[in-house]
Amino acid sequence: MTEFDLIARLTQSLPTNPSTVLGAGDDCAILDLGLTDRWLLFKTDAIVAGIHFDATTPAEKIGRKALARCLSDFAAMAGTPTHALITLALPTNFELEVVEAIYGGLNALAARHRVAVVGGETTTNPERMLISVAVLGTVGKDTCVRRSGARMGDAIFVSGDLGGSRSGKHLDFEPRLAEAEWLADNFSIHAMIDISDGLAGDLRHILKASQVGAELLSETIPVSRAAKLAARAKTSAKSPFVAALTDGEDFELLFALSSHDAVPLLDAWKQRFPNLRLSCIGKITAQKGVTIRDKKGTRPLTLDGYVHFAQLSGQNSPDGL
Amino acid sequence: MTEFDLIARLTQSLPTNPSTVLGAGDDCAILDLGLTDRWLLFKTDAIVAGIHFDATTPAEKIGRKALARCLSDFAAMAGTPTHALITLALPTNFELEVVEAIYGGLNALAARHRVAVVGGETTTNPERMLISVAVLGTVGKDTCVRRSGARMGDAIFVSGDLGGSRSGKHLDFEPRLAEAEWLADNFSIHAMIDISDGLAGDLRHILKASQVGAELLSETIPVSRAAKLAARAKTSAKSPFVAALTDGEDFELLFALSSHDAVPLLDAWKQRFPNLRLSCIGKITAQKGVTIRDKKGTRPLTLDGYVHFAQLSGQNSPDGL
Repeated sequence: MTEFDLIARLTQSLPTNPSTVLGAGDDCAILDLGLTDRWLLFKTDAIVAGIHFDATTPAEKIGRKALARCLSDFAAMAGTPTHALITLALPTNFELEVVEAIYGGLNALAARHRVAVVGGETTTNPERMLISVAVLGTVGKDTCVRRSGARMGDAIFVSGDLGGSRSGKHLDFEPRLAEAEWLADNFSIHAMIDISDGLAGDLRHILKASQVGAELLSETIPVSRAAKLAARAKTSAKSPFVAALTDGEDFELLFALSSHDAVPLLDAWKQRFPNLRLSCIGKITAQKGVTIRDKKGTRPLTLDGYVHFAQLSGQNSPDGL
Repeated sequence: MTEFDLIARLTQSLPTNPSTVLGAGDDCAILDLGLTDRWLLFKTDAIVAGIHFDATTPAEKIGRKALARCLSDFAAMAGTPTHALITLALPTNFELEVVEAIYGGLNALAARHRVAVVGGETTTNPERMLISVAVLGTVGKDTCVRRSGARMGDAIFVSGDLGGSRSGKHLDFEPRLAEAEWLADNFSIHAMIDISDGLAGDLRHILKASQVGAELLSETIPVSRAAKLAARAKTSAKSPFVAALTDGEDFELLFALSSHDAVPLLDAWKQRFPNLRLSCIGKITAQKGVTIRDKKGTRPLTLDGYVHFAQLSGQNSPDGL
């Protein structure tokens, strides 16, 4: 049973109420508590020592990452985070300086995004540190973007470069809040998610919620320099291309909008965000599942990444997998 | 350094913003996101295996407790919880049935209080289970009760009986949401808190926030049957009276209001909540610190509980400590 299977089972019977617009299943929950033109967004995320960071991670970056992951979920819905609560579960004999540095990194990111840290809790988790962050914010009812609105024929876009985040970006990424707000204000974005589980996995979340499929164009996937360097240095067993499809923690925006808007979007984006790549990587299809097309043809992509071409046809895959 | 010292140090430099009415330092944070007559309340709380529950605790009660603690904080401010997110950090090789039972207990309590569980997260915490719950809700701007409003001469009240919670109540307590709402709707409650750290400790939180002191009347402290049984069975090293003052996790309401309202309150409470004791246990004083009065006189109470009378005067304490 995967994490997703467990979540699916648990979320079947959660209690709800009339002020819940959308419960579990998107990047944030959507709540209507009576504001005229805005909904509330509500999200928690936890990071654990030995899994999301390790003994070599600078404490400031641990705190920064704990908050940044949540803020990225607000970006995924074109929301504005406003308030955070921090649960810091500390191992026995923690060092005060480490705790203060964690808060230092977290507070700096919060302040830059005008997020107030309004409390939280310290507790004991004897064997390892765990930080859970809960964030509240708002989103325009007109501009809120869910995972579920992708339509056949939509163009699929991704910001930035993908893969190899573990070599550093996972600690330093900037949540794409400004980019997402600009997108939602200027274009009709049909569906959006932030890439935390890897492009292939997170695209599946959009497709499942929207009940559609997708065809990706192999040569348009923006492979990061970090993924290429990791492959060259043999610190990754994956090819750079597979890393771009399957590595987690890119925290880039993956979204779908009408293909008619694709060229205007690319032009406007270059003006507004000249230092951040935006790539059109494929299209939404009526047929379920994900296929990937390259010069040798089209083949299916599995949930966790790439299906080796040779496994399907006996040929070698074009990128040498 | 205690948990409170650490929190005090960390909360000195938290980022804030104009929509924050009250950040760290009360039972919930208070936020103004533009609702006409209500504020938002925001709270997180975590429980950890081996600390707040153990291997013998039924899974349903673990889940129930995780949420009930947060709801009790909403009661402390006379608020109404509306939405919860659950972070379930699971040890390696968890049993699915246990996870489902945890959610079962939590969901049942949530449903009874019309709290929607709108998602959350499962993650790994290899050595032990940890559950963090984030709750959002609202409170009337006119009826919100903080810790900071106690005034000299106020009467101090506590609901229920105190002490010995560890023998069972800590898993079964009912958050005093209905009682708190009724109190705030019908009386001018100056300050309130829920008793999680013990009467002596939590009273100190009110006194510090309100910059006042208190005098308690020894014979009015409502000692629970559980505390008496624990002393008799020698499962507690404390006298029942000391247990009532210092045991944690009672989750009763401790509050202050004008002494003019004391008798009307007691009368009305008996009508409305005939099965729940309400005790007037003392008064707010201008002089800082807590004293306790009995037939032999008045003596100071320390933060963590009772100062042995003999330590001050060479006499034996009246309750045989």
